[in-house]
This record gives sequence, structure tokens and C-alpha cells, in this order.
Amino acid sequence: MSEDPSKVVRIGLLGRGTVGGAFADLLAARAGAVEAATGRRPEISGVLTREGGDFDAILERSDVIVELMGGTDPARGHVLDALRAKRPVVTANKQLLAKHGDELFDVAREAGVQLRFEAAVAGVIPIVRTIQESFGVTEIAKVFGIVNGTTNFILTEMAASGAPFEEVLARAQELGYAEADPTDDVNGADAAAKMAILARLAFHTPVTLDGVSYEGIERVKPDDIAYAKELGLSLKLLGVAERREGGISVRVFPCFLSPGHPLAPVEGPFNAVMVEAPDITEVTMSGPGAGGVQTASAVLGDLVSILNGDAPVHETREELPIVSDVVSSFYLHLEVADRPGVLAQVAKVLGDKEVSVKSVVQQGVGEDARLVMVVHECLESRFAEALEAIDALDVLRAPPRAIRVIEEEFV
Amino acid sequence: MSEDPSKVVRIGLLGRGTVGGAFADLLAARAGAVEAATGRRPEISGVLTREGGDFDAILERSDVIVELMGGTDPARGHVLDALRAKRPVVTANKQLLAKHGDELFDVAREAGVQLRFEAAVAGVIPIVRTIQESFGVTEIAKVFGIVNGTTNFILTEMAASGAPFEEVLARAQELGYAEADPTDDVNGADAAAKMAILARLAFHTPVTLDGVSYEGIERVKPDDIAYAKELGLSLKLLGVAERREGGISVRVFPCFLSPGHPLAPVEGPFNAVMVEAPDITEVTMSGPGAGGVQTASAVLGDLVSILNGDAPVHETREELPIVSDVVSSFYLHLEVADRPGVLAQVAKVLGDKEVSVKSVVQQGVGEDARLVMVVHECLESRFAEALEAIDALDVLRAPPRAIRVIEEEFV
Repeated sequence: MSEDPSKVVRIGLLGRGTVGGAFADLLAARAGAVEAATGRRPEISGVLTREGGDFDAILERSDVIVELMGGTDPARGHVLDALRAKRPVVTANKQLLAKHGDELFDVAREAGVQLRFEAAVAGVIPIVRTIQESFGVTEIAKVFGIVNGTTNFILTEMAASGAPFEEVLARAQELGYAEADPTDDVNGADAAAKMAILARLAFHTPVTLDGVSYEGIERVKPDDIAYAKELGLSLKLLGVAERREGGISVRVFPCFLSPGHPLAPVEGPFNAVMVEAPDITEVTMSGPGAGGVQTASAVLGDLVSILNGDAPVHETREELPIVSDVVSSFYLHLEVADRPGVLAQVAKVLGDKEVSVKSVVQQGVGEDARLVMVVHECLESRFAEALEAIDALDVLRAPPRAIRVIEEEFV
Repeated sequence: MSEDPSKVVRIGLLGRGTVGGAFADLLAARAGAVEAATGRRPEISGVLTREGGDFDAILERSDVIVELMGGTDPARGHVLDALRAKRPVVTANKQLLAKHGDELFDVAREAGVQLRFEAAVAGVIPIVRTIQESFGVTEIAKVFGIVNGTTNFILTEMAASGAPFEEVLARAQELGYAEADPTDDVNGADAAAKMAILARLAFHTPVTLDGVSYEGIERVKPDDIAYAKELGLSLKLLGVAERREGGISVRVFPCFLSPGHPLAPVEGPFNAVMVEAPDITEVTMSGPGAGGVQTASAVLGDLVSILNGDAPVHETREELPIVSDVVSSFYLHLEVADRPGVLAQVAKVLGDKEVSVKSVVQQGVGEDARLVMVVHECLESRFAEALEAIDALDVLRAPPRAIRVIEEEFV
């Protein structure tokens, strides 16, 4: 099979660890969607790994470079070479951007090619694009949030179990939420690199890792968390970049949040970032902060944007039918006659329609007697039939009331 | 003063109500930032209002059209004319897009110009850009959320006060959170239009308002909310667009959420949208769903994207200094000797450094005696001095521990 070479876009992949491998798989799985969105079919033209591959040869036969090696050396040299050779670059490398941002952006600008890095901060949460594009001319006052999933997982577990830091860290390592050497995560350095990037974008000013002061969570005691719980507070490792007295402040520190705070419910390995500005009030975004396929998705989003260059007009890709009957679970409120056998009658109707009851409470007496129930997921058409049959029972004092219920745990 | 006309971009503004007026003000305030970001200085070249203005003349002397009139007529004709005349269009008009999306996208595609509409759904939350660009090749399973601020305000107030729907609606109208004719908000039609747009983008399939089934909140009783509270649930008006058995389902309905659900804490006039897909797990975005300047900010973000066409390389605009000393409030944990006068000694040190105590709890006896306190916002350098002085007191059994505290109410 020969393909029209003008329709192929050749991707040079640097690094094939967890994220690099997930990206190669995702690119293969979504090749058709990429072609539909951009008009070009992506192909991996070469992979550079620690074991082998020739960077110059890969660069020569690539249209775009995707850098997922991590670390600053040799990643920095490769990214600079790629940009100078007028190849757009997508990278997930927060250390590289936090330490050498000025150099990288200067070279990209001179070469007139794109450098995209959504995956470098907060995984799949599109905070880089949002700050650069949606809020690109907004006078941002503050960007802050939870940008390290390892520490948020540890703090969540400490709060839930009361166990000390060292014990929970060991558990996080077993579960793959912390690396064998967790130093940069737990001491705040990883979050600091991400905040340097966000501060640079939000305030359009050069910020490097040196400008970020950071503290980690190593010294947090179960006691602190226990007392905080009494006060209704939750503990998070926060990154905060904000305008302060004619300049900016960029810091990472553990911090208690009151229960009404939008970041308070963010648990486990999730990340969340808030942007504040007078014109937008505040916008909060949360999602998985790490994970191979999630990070690879952020990389792929950047790749598509590079291939599109200009923003796309929405395209219909297929004509999907509207499905009108779906499953839901319901709360059901019945004002009933206060006499024996009412629950049995209602339960029989539900059973006949194969609607299964999850919980039921009988309340009130006389003119105030009620049945309040929650039913398990069932086809809505079947529930509607059951509701009609219940409405026809002579034990009801008013039409039945039903409201859908979603029960789900976060993370 | 003459200006280089090639550097000016002429904006034709259709509509000058709340959002139109806020956009004109914001554009003037941010003109310098727009020029820094795009190389072109924006100028309003004409305004069409109900009272006057000639659309054809405005179109003739504009490079971009911003449509903020609302309604489908005459907005539809004007937007189509603008696109056919190869003028990119930014609109906040959800009804227009929900009813005539196919026609508008077809004409934009034929003309080869951009049609952007971030402000049409969920105000300043960048959900349109996120779905179209970040997740443009993601196989999205479900998009759902709270996309009508009026009803969320009403439900939040009903839960807080126990008052019936009609009474809370009247209060919302007084506060400007509900319009004089609130029909389309409370019956779910407004949310349905937004979900039609999100479903179209998420699933790349034509969806119009006719394909969305919706219920409103008119029949919700204080009773339902009271019982839900007992079960730990909160009531929201949800829009849900999801893949179901080979097709899609797009609906709007009131729904109970369990307390762990990411949408449960979204209160008052805020909106929030979640996107679910296997590759991204779930991403949640929340923020103000309405408001003149917030909506105008979303319009301005679209305008900048249109002017940039190609994605921008990050630019430094100014060199802001890093401010290292900022104000924070702190939790302070002291393991102290169990004898009289300890609190007085600690309080004196804090007072000398002008650190003001918000709350203090004394706990434990003997070897377990502690002071746990929260202090009001103060300069961190001053708090550090106080901490050093406290550490030097002979009443401490261990070094003092301090953690920052953020207390803030959502909305």
C-alpha cells in the first residue's frame, strides 16, 4: 500500500518510558481521528531511547519532534536543535522549561515554530492552553493550586488513616503513586518547577525555578492533620503565583484550606488549578495530574494544535443517532395513606416492572405520611411505567414525585 | 495622531446590552494587551443597536464581527452575511448555535473563516476551546455539568433557606440572578441549548435543540431538598450529553448528587462542566456562568485567538520582580510545658511582633500539653521572627510547627 506522502506527518519521538510508550500507543489508536481533524496522518518516523537511536537521523526525517525523555540533558540540546531546524516541538518536560524557558522560547520565536507543553503542568488539565489562549490578554492576579499528585495522594491518605508520613509514603510507592526516589515530589521541587512555568505564562514575565521558594510535606505530622480536621480544615501542598506589591510571588507550601474552598475536595492523585482575575472572577480546573495515557493525551492535544496551525472550524465526522431511553437511578417521593400494606403495594408495582429498590424510608403519620425511596439504575421507560402504575394506586394522596440521582465517588 | 492602518483591526459590534457594553469597555481597557499579543490594535468600527446603525455599512468597514445581540433574528442573517463576506465572527449566542449550527458551520467552512463562540456556553469557563482543541481527537464518553447559573442559584438558596421555589425565584430576580421573564432558565431550555452545542463539539455530530430533552426545576419542592439533605445529597439542574448504545443521549434534568461528586460543591450562580473519556479519566472546570465582564472576557479570548490565527510563542512583556515577603495567615502548633503562664508568654511574643491571634485551643496535660492556634494574616518575615522568639522560650518541649492557612468561601 502506498500512501500520499504529502498527507503524512512524520513524528520523531524522543523517549519511550511510561509516557513515551503511552503516546506511541495512543497515536496509533487515534491516527484516524488525527487525520480527520488535521488532514494529515501521523506516523512515528523514529524513536530515540537510552538504548539507541541517532538523534540527527531522526530529526532529518521528522516534521515534528515530541520530547518525552525528561531531565535537562540531553533533552535541552535536542529540543534546541529541533527548533533551530524549524521543527515544531511538543514536550512534557517541566524541568527543562522551568530552568531554560527563556532560551527555549527565544529560539522558538526566532525560528518561527511552535513549542507546546501542556503535559508539563497538571497532566491532562488544559491549564497551559487556558492561560496562554483563553486568558492571554486577561490581567491575571493569581494562579494557584495542587500541581503534584504524589503529595496530594499522601496527604489524602494521612488524613483518612491517621498514619504518619513515612508509612503513607511507603504505601504510595507500592501503589505506583510515588517513585522509588520521591525526593523532588515530597520536598516541593516538582511543584516549584510547574509553578515557574505557570507564573511565566500568567504574568508574561521571565520566571525560572530559582525564583520559586518551596517547602515540602516531609515534616507534616498526623497531629497537625488531626487538629485541622477538628477545625474543619484540609491540608494540601499548594503552589501559588500571584501579583504582590508591584512584583510577583511564586511559592510552594503545605497549607490548610477551609471546607468551602474549591480546592478542598480535590483528593488522591488529582491536580487542580485556579486562575483569579477581576474580569473572570475565578476559574477552577481539576483532573488527573499524572498517568501514562492521560499525559499522552495532553501531548496529543498539542500535536493536533500544531498540525492545525490556524484554529479549525467545527467538522461533522459522523451522524450519531439520539438515544432517547437510557438508564438512571431515581429518588421517589410518595405522599401515601397512613395504613398497613401501602409499602407492599408500591413495592409490588416496582417489582413487576423490574425496578429494584435501594433504600426506603417511611416518615410522618396521618395526613403527613410519606414513602421516600431511592431505586437502582433502570431504563427510564420502565421507571416511567412503574410511576404511572403507582400513580393509579388508590393509596396515594398526591401524584408521585421522582428526581434522578447520581452517586459517585470522586477519584 | 495618525496610526499605521495596517496595524489596526476593526471590530464591528452587533448589540450593546449588558454583554455588548461590557465588551466595548473591556476592549478599550485591554487594547494594549491585545496589541502586545497579536500585533494589532483593536478599534470598534461601528455598533449596531436596536435603536440604530446600518449593518451593511458596519460590515463594510470591519475586519471582524462580534455578535452580542442574542436571539436568532436578525442575528442569524447578520452572522451568515459576515461569514460569507469572509469576516471571522465571535458570538455568545447559544440559541443561534443550538438552532442553526449546521448552517453556520457550513458557511464558515466554505468561506474559510473562523466562527468562535466560547461565551455561548458556561460563561468564562473555557469548555468550548477545551473540547475543540485540547480534546479534539479524544473519544469523549460524556460531557455533563451545571450550565445554568440562575437555576443553580435558586437551588442553592432553596437548600440553604428551606423556602419554596416561587419565593426564591422572586429573590433571585431582585438580585439580578434571574430575568424578569425567567421561563427559559427555570424550564431547562437555556441549559438544553448549551448542551446541544457541547454535544455537537464533543461527539463531532450534528445536534440541534430538537434533539435535547429537558426538564426544569419548577416542580422541585422544599421537601425534596430536605429529604435529600438527610441522605447527604445535593440537588442540581444537570445537563448530560453521553454516548449510549451506538448513539448519544442529550438531556437536562434536576438530579441529586452524592457529597463526593465533583459537581456537588458548585454553588450559587457558578457553572461547572465535566468531560469524561477513557484517555483522560475526567476533567472538571468551574467558574462564573454569567456576568457582563466575565462573558465579555470569553468573547475577548476568542477575538485574540482569531487575530493570532497560528498559535503564539510565549512572549515576555515586562520584567516583574519576585516579591519574597508576603502576608499569610498561619496555624501554629506548640508542644508546651503544662504550667500556668505559658499562653501569656507566647501571646506576649506574638503581640510584640504585631502578630494577631484569631483562635487558640489548649489541649492535653503533662507531657501531652499543646497550644494550637490560628493567627491572622501578617507579613511572613514578621511571623518568622515571632516563631524564632517563641522557639527561644524555655516553655517549649519541641520546636514550634507552623502551616499556612487559607480560609475562603466559594462564590
